[in-house]
Amino acid sequence: MTEHILKITCADAPGLIYKIMGVLFTHGYNVVRNQEFVDADTEQFFMRTVVQGRADLDPALEELRRVLPAGHHVGKFVSGPRPVVLLATREAHCLGDLLLRHADGELNADLRAVVSNHAHLGKLVERFEIPFVHVSHEGVSRIEHERRVVEVVESFAPEYLVLAKYMRILTPFFVSRYPHRILNIHHSFLPAFIGARPYHQAFERGVKLIGATAHLVTEDLDTGPIIAQDVVHVHHGYTAEDMVRAGRDVEKVVLARALRLVLEERVFVHGNRTIVFD
Amino acid sequence: MTEHILKITCADAPGLIYKIMGVLFTHGYNVVRNQEFVDADTEQFFMRTVVQGRADLDPALEELRRVLPAGHHVGKFVSGPRPVVLLATREAHCLGDLLLRHADGELNADLRAVVSNHAHLGKLVERFEIPFVHVSHEGVSRIEHERRVVEVVESFAPEYLVLAKYMRILTPFFVSRYPHRILNIHHSFLPAFIGARPYHQAFERGVKLIGATAHLVTEDLDTGPIIAQDVVHVHHGYTAEDMVRAGRDVEKVVLARALRLVLEERVFVHGNRTIVFD
Amino acid sequence: MTEHILKITCADAPGLIYKIMGVLFTHGYNVVRNQEFVDADTEQFFMRTVVQGRADLDPALEELRRVLPAGHHVGKFVSGPRPVVLLATREAHCLGDLLLRHADGELNADLRAVVSNHAHLGKLVERFEIPFVHVSHEGVSRIEHERRVVEVVESFAPEYLVLAKYMRILTPFFVSRYPHRILNIHHSFLPAFIGARPYHQAFERGVKLIGATAHLVTEDLDTGPIIAQDVVHVHHGYTAEDMVRAGRDVEKVVLARALRLVLEERVFVHGNRTIVFD
Amino acid sequence: MTEHILKITCADAPGLIYKIMGVLFTHGYNVVRNQEFVDADTEQFFMRTVVQGRADLDPALEELRRVLPAGHHVGKFVSGPRPVVLLATREAHCLGDLLLRHADGELNADLRAVVSNHAHLGKLVERFEIPFVHVSHEGVSRIEHERRVVEVVESFAPEYLVLAKYMRILTPFFVSRYPHRILNIHHSFLPAFIGARPYHQAFERGVKLIGATAHLVTEDLDTGPIIAQDVVHVHHGYTAEDMVRAGRDVEKVVLARALRLVLEERVFVHGNRTIVFD
Repeated sequence: MTEHILKITCADAPGLIYKIMGVLFTHGYNVVRNQEFVDADTEQFFMRTVVQGRADLDPALEELRRVLPAGHHVGKFVSGPRPVVLLATREAHCLGDLLLRHADGELNADLRAVVSNHAHLGKLVERFEIPFVHVSHEGVSRIEHERRVVEVVESFAPEYLVLAKYMRILTPFFVSRYPHRILNIHHSFLPAFIGARPYHQAFERGVKLIGATAHLVTEDLDTGPIIAQDVVHVHHGYTAEDMVRAGRDVEKVVLARALRLVLEERVFVHGNRTIVFD
Repeated sequence: MTEHILKITCADAPGLIYKIMGVLFTHGYNVVRNQEFVDADTEQFFMRTVVQGRADLDPALEELRRVLPAGHHVGKFVSGPRPVVLLATREAHCLGDLLLRHADGELNADLRAVVSNHAHLGKLVERFEIPFVHVSHEGVSRIEHERRVVEVVESFAPEYLVLAKYMRILTPFFVSRYPHRILNIHHSFLPAFIGARPYHQAFERGVKLIGATAHLVTEDLDTGPIIAQDVVHVHHGYTAEDMVRAGRDVEKVVLARALRLVLEERVFVHGNRTIVFD
Repeated sequence: MTEHILKITCADAPGLIYKIMGVLFTHGYNVVRNQEFVDADTEQFFMRTVVQGRADLDPALEELRRVLPAGHHVGKFVSGPRPVVLLATREAHCLGDLLLRHADGELNADLRAVVSNHAHLGKLVERFEIPFVHVSHEGVSRIEHERRVVEVVESFAPEYLVLAKYMRILTPFFVSRYPHRILNIHHSFLPAFIGARPYHQAFERGVKLIGATAHLVTEDLDTGPIIAQDVVHVHHGYTAEDMVRAGRDVEKVVLARALRLVLEERVFVHGNRTIVFD
Repeated sequence: MTEHILKITCADAPGLIYKIMGVLFTHGYNVVRNQEFVDADTEQFFMRTVVQGRADLDPALEELRRVLPAGHHVGKFVSGPRPVVLLATREAHCLGDLLLRHADGELNADLRAVVSNHAHLGKLVERFEIPFVHVSHEGVSRIEHERRVVEVVESFAPEYLVLAKYMRILTPFFVSRYPHRILNIHHSFLPAFIGARPYHQAFERGVKLIGATAHLVTEDLDTGPIIAQDVVHVHHGYTAEDMVRAGRDVEKVVLARALRLVLEERVFVHGNRTIVFD
């Protein structure tokens, strides 16, 4: 028996769950976990179902598509590690945390490579016996650099990319190749403190909370759909550097949490929001 | 059209959601919100469904019972304020907070009375034009006092009781009359710091967190199924009194959160745990 | 013996604490609690000292001023309830929470009145036997309305004002009368979601956290020095209304926490930041 | 100029800060950071002072001891990395996190070795070029095993030990060699869920929070003075294994936070509580 994850999105309609369950039932699939949500404003239906049954899901899917309203979207996924490539620049905390979790068997990921525009993190990555590819941005145009990064990334055939503090802005050319498949971590509070040195801005502003936001990358880099957020309390005794340090702890935990949700196919994108079946 | 809440608990079985949805669909009910959970250990199925349709749900329920496995439990509830009685002793923070929320239209409750073993809170309650009944425990046995409290409580015919810092231990006689229908708030960390003056124990222990736990009362008073918990950070500068103060803030918020979940019939009890469809 | 709170701000200098303590010691004052902080960037020194001793602090203060660097600021406060006026509009959660805390003896405040531009909250306030003054903004200019509010407020001679969800923008005319003496509560995430209906903006953005920020009001209304912040987690199942409700809980707790800090003279303003000796 | 950290504990007395500051001032030391606390119950005084001045602090200390009340304790520390040895067993999350932080230059530690009763973590440690010593407990008595561990540990001359999920109970023989110098991380909620498989106990109990407590080890292993605590929210959908995973994230962050506080000499032990000058 194979375990499949099904993700269904369509307009809400009477009897929808009944019909979907009917198809799965008559094809002999046993529902292990089922979660649905209807967005009240847009009357859009979202369902994540984990079923066990025959490996060949296609006959069931074919019938499923016939009972679903027009405009539906059905994704199917087999449980198991998903191919992932990480991008990083110079900061080690998020990258190192993911490498550790992967080495510890915690991530549902087949971690294929780390690509960086700096050589700095190579030593850390190699400690974990993961391929490290340095694609320097020096002396080349932004476009040319990105083209080279894409080439390297694609050679590893990832389903998901994780920007583990990758400090280059991606162009629509890059983003459109991985629609809702690039995960990023951003200091909070989005959209506050946009621009350079956000923690220093936060320090100047005297905030009492430092946060982090994990989101999917869209063409508007820092405003894609949010998957997870958290904060940590700080006080007046924190220097800007202390805030950076405190921020690192929340960034790495939030990014790892979001990555787990994404790799387990628990996240739906709906406009600029997410449905997260945690 | 009436909005009904259905709560179904039974052994898990293939096609269960399909069958349930089939009954609801054929009886013309539209599913507004649906949440299920299967406990992996015990293979128990839990479902909360909000449907819209005919006011008379009985024909659908009758058929539903035929398709559910033996030993099922089906609860039906009409949306709308639920009759509630609060019990309190001397502390005002939880009681006052619930009175405020009720006056503000936030609680889905028909707040019928406050019963107390002290006269102290009468003035506060009367400010909100809610009946206040003082049932003194002085000069009467524990059993006799409780009998009098039950008599008063029953005269208001509540579905739910809330112990808003009611400092008397309820006997099984009382508890068994409201199975899983009495909500209590307890300092955390349950079961740590059992006994008198828990915040002072916490102070002596030098804890850095103060918590609160809202739970349903079973015959083992402070160990019933947990609905909500939260904490607040404290530090060495907090006296025991400061910890009490900090604890009040988290107690009142957690109790109100749990009460909302209970009144919206979002809570299932499963052994000593809860399923909470938040 | 009287308990005095001293707040000293000046440029940092060698031997500063030594000199200050020397003055207090030779004048017979016993230090009950002492907290200092030096801001590394600006080399500014902040000290809050609670001392016990003679009621007449002036001789000690006079000598203190001689040993402090030029440009120092010394505030002295006697422990005990501080005169406060609350301003509100239509929302009851913050106002009600403060009224409850005051009635419960928790606030170190002499709560003199609630002033509102709506009649709506009058009933709630009168339940607590606090004067309620309705200053309608209808049919008068913004300036004229504010002039009338100031007149009423000043008749109660408060040291501090609390904007408990007061939905009128204060002009510099008003703010300058109470420099760093007006406390406000703002939905987070400042400065995100500026403008109308912030919770609805947050909902549209699909945030996973709802926060609140308590700050002192400066002429730039929502960007004054922050005293306290907190958040609560939300998820995709929250409607905009649910977010408003969740926001209320964090708003009222954060405002009360900040007010306690302010009334106990634990807050220093330094540029646009605060030093908070919690 | 050298930066020194001074930690002073003594009975509270009038003019104490004045006298201490006088000594430091007359010896030409400049106070960079100063924090004091008086425990109201026991009238005990705690002070952490960071001063800059001559490398030879002894003349000042000698004079300081003359002005302090009998029974005082003065610790002096030079800023800079402190020698640390980690102990671990099989779980990688806390150990790996500390290794990463050390490699990243975040810990104020001279990390000299990792000692483990299992070989399992050797590969991870060696990736970071830190000595790994496997001291197997198989076939030797508890006492003999511990004797061997002590021998190895002492050969690295650490000031601090960190139990990074070291699953052996230390005897008083071991603990007494490092009084208040051994840091441990414990699942919360201490003292709840004592014994084996605490997360499974927490799961059975249906808790909605998973926590972690970092504390100093005393002869009562899990009840030593607490330095830091935190929690993460969980829900009914979490299996016991999910709770373990969630617990790991909070354990590693809390342990690292506590270690930073300890290594920066920000922690005082007072009875079974701590004063933490964060």
